[in-house]
Amino acid sequence: MMDIVERLAAELGEGRVLTGGAIPERHHADTAGLPPTAPRAVVLPRSTEEVSAALRLCHAAGQPVVTQGGLTGLAGGAHPREGEVVISLERMRGVEEVDTDCATLTALAGTPLQVVQEAAEAAGLLCGIDLGARGSCTIGGNIATNAGGNQVLRYGMARRNVLGLEVVLADGTVVRSLNKMLKNNAGYDWTQLFIGSEGTLGIVTRVVLGLHPRPEGVATALCALGSAAEALALLAALERRFGGGLLVFEGMWREFIAVATERLGQARPFEATHEVLVLVEAAVGDAARLEDALGDFVEAGLIRDAVVARSGRDRARLWAYRETPYEYRTVFDRYVGFDVSVPRARIGEAVTALRAAATARWPDAAQVIFGHIADSNLHVMVMPPGADAAMKDMIERVVYGIVAGFGGSVSAEHGIGRTKRPYLALSRSPEELALMGMMKRALDPSGLLNPGRVL
Amino acid sequence: MMDIVERLAAELGEGRVLTGGAIPERHHADTAGLPPTAPRAVVLPRSTEEVSAALRLCHAAGQPVVTQGGLTGLAGGAHPREGEVVISLERMRGVEEVDTDCATLTALAGTPLQVVQEAAEAAGLLCGIDLGARGSCTIGGNIATNAGGNQVLRYGMARRNVLGLEVVLADGTVVRSLNKMLKNNAGYDWTQLFIGSEGTLGIVTRVVLGLHPRPEGVATALCALGSAAEALALLAALERRFGGGLLVFEGMWREFIAVATERLGQARPFEATHEVLVLVEAAVGDAARLEDALGDFVEAGLIRDAVVARSGRDRARLWAYRETPYEYRTVFDRYVGFDVSVPRARIGEAVTALRAAATARWPDAAQVIFGHIADSNLHVMVMPPGADAAMKDMIERVVYGIVAGFGGSVSAEHGIGRTKRPYLALSRSPEELALMGMMKRALDPSGLLNPGRVL
Repeated sequence: MMDIVERLAAELGEGRVLTGGAIPERHHADTAGLPPTAPRAVVLPRSTEEVSAALRLCHAAGQPVVTQGGLTGLAGGAHPREGEVVISLERMRGVEEVDTDCATLTALAGTPLQVVQEAAEAAGLLCGIDLGARGSCTIGGNIATNAGGNQVLRYGMARRNVLGLEVVLADGTVVRSLNKMLKNNAGYDWTQLFIGSEGTLGIVTRVVLGLHPRPEGVATALCALGSAAEALALLAALERRFGGGLLVFEGMWREFIAVATERLGQARPFEATHEVLVLVEAAVGDAARLEDALGDFVEAGLIRDAVVARSGRDRARLWAYRETPYEYRTVFDRYVGFDVSVPRARIGEAVTALRAAATARWPDAAQVIFGHIADSNLHVMVMPPGADAAMKDMIERVVYGIVAGFGGSVSAEHGIGRTKRPYLALSRSPEELALMGMMKRALDPSGLLNPGRVL
Repeated sequence: MMDIVERLAAELGEGRVLTGGAIPERHHADTAGLPPTAPRAVVLPRSTEEVSAALRLCHAAGQPVVTQGGLTGLAGGAHPREGEVVISLERMRGVEEVDTDCATLTALAGTPLQVVQEAAEAAGLLCGIDLGARGSCTIGGNIATNAGGNQVLRYGMARRNVLGLEVVLADGTVVRSLNKMLKNNAGYDWTQLFIGSEGTLGIVTRVVLGLHPRPEGVATALCALGSAAEALALLAALERRFGGGLLVFEGMWREFIAVATERLGQARPFEATHEVLVLVEAAVGDAARLEDALGDFVEAGLIRDAVVARSGRDRARLWAYRETPYEYRTVFDRYVGFDVSVPRARIGEAVTALRAAATARWPDAAQVIFGHIADSNLHVMVMPPGADAAMKDMIERVVYGIVAGFGGSVSAEHGIGRTKRPYLALSRSPEELALMGMMKRALDPSGLLNPGRVL
């Protein structure tokens, strides 16, 4: 009897299966910060048939697998555990078709998001999925984690952009619906099962995305507000004025702006200090329309102050505030970061509670709050000087406890993976968890797909 | 031992369980045209707890149930079969909350769609789900069937409008996620399972919808085009020009317009006869912007002719063409109707093939084609003089065969129910059907929920 690694190599060919020192180190970890772990082997299939063959063999052998895409996940979903076989989709890349009449794009799952975006743009269309890791994350990973980003307000999470999927089930069965139609109610839409299941129910191998018209005349502004409630009133006013044209509505609370200006050298955006600034982008045809609207809002007392970008340089300057977290590593030794959501109506209360808890417990720790207000999604970062693992656990328990108290979610867009698994029950009832378990057992009865992730 | 009907009455109270002549006839049929059938009993729960109690008892007794909402379904999903117990949600109605900060609405599943729409409007917002049966269909039924309609282009199918659900499983377990957050990746989004499952996996009892800003400055026009390809080019041009503002893009082929003008007394919309007319609505701020755009398109040779509504009366006159199918019963003895989809890029070929097949096989039959072009959704109607059941079967086989040949779906928006079950395999592979069967067995292992529907 050959062992499973020998069988995989025999079936797929030597070059497709790496072991020991031949495994590039990048396969030892994703971006969650867990200790790097060498998997038992890395399988590099080049086709759906090869993914199917690999899963069929692993299923027969009871061999646990973990699926890897671009390894940009922040929750440890693709981080290998001892003894697991990695199925990496990095060699299954390529946009196979852009159909401009149907406004769809078909790609292999390992295609980097940016390659997908560029193919859509080359055809005069837009991919609705966008996030910071676009250069390295894969479209399959985006779908497996139901990725979010800055334009969810306009284009929804990854789920909303998916029209068709090809998936390989735990036993190697290939299920395919390369649907290009916006309306298709022929039986259950089984593709929904796999979107956001983080590789625990099957492996996404091919995707059909619905594309969008490219927004024209996008204008950018930074608005100053006295509270989260004022930010929600601005959101409603902008939506009334520009309807489907609103693209971005990113909130940054005062501590966030203080870090940007006092520690990272950004110019103060306004003379006064405001509770929250909101970065707004909208397809308005002409920047003057946004300027007019914001002028009206200032006059009506809806907003405290505002600045509209008049050039690409202005726009970059306004976005630079929102992008400062990418530089935090240069000024903070460490931070504990969160991706949570609370119902929009309770964001103000949640910010107050988070601030008070951090100030009372860790008076020396910097703390920032920012995020996608329209999507109910807050990113919270606490920077305790000299934090250790026990401190991290305590901060997590406090923050997740507050979020749960507001009926929020412990994961807005990053998924559960391994790192948030202990907190899932704060956002889900026993009945919901039992139903998720039922789905897992139906699709992966032996528990071989990404075990220990999500559930 | 009491029989199941006695047990239901004992548990829920006499007034909640109707039998024999006490059952109103409306519960004998939905709108699919199947022969009316008296169910064994009708249960009228007033709360989720009562739905749960009813399912728990039926589950223990092995009693099949069928769920009824507004009974407007066209595929027989809610049409009772002999011996089934009806669970009617008609007494579970009411909008429980409109949360303007979150832009959400919470309602009991038996609430008529129009009541939901009016509650959203009263709060200055819009419910994205709309269809002709709005006065009688229920929001729970809309979600259970993933209903479509005329504005799917802008707001998506019912699925896209759902943020949270409460569902009762086959054994009476209540699972609840009354989520109001746009981003929530805390584990599997199990609510997706139930949307569009036509009551075969669980009973939807309560819903949270995401609401939209109300579009302002909506303009309406009728455009004349020489082919489906020209219609797609117009769609792309309008999307480029008005982005998220495009609301309606309804195609009507020449035979459809001929029935409207020659048999139903509508004025000819244009002097010339055109292959396809498209009814367009877009939130453009000012009707002049749509007029300008269409003027440019005529000049560029993109469209043959166009008329823009300048008053509410004009708008009603343009919509009257699209609404003529509601009057077909006054001029045709009978018709065989279809709700199919084909990829947008192949709509022109599909129309040609459908036309040729009907003309060759049933030269005396009128035939019309119309539908939601942007959504890839065509409604086809064939009116054979003196058709009987065998003729209906033959027409269905021919039309569904053509649709399948173009990679289309036998059900775009009406669902599968009972009437389309024989044709499901034309649009789904054996692997897809097996996966759907796996989902059904996991959630309803005894097969008691809407048996014989969908699968």
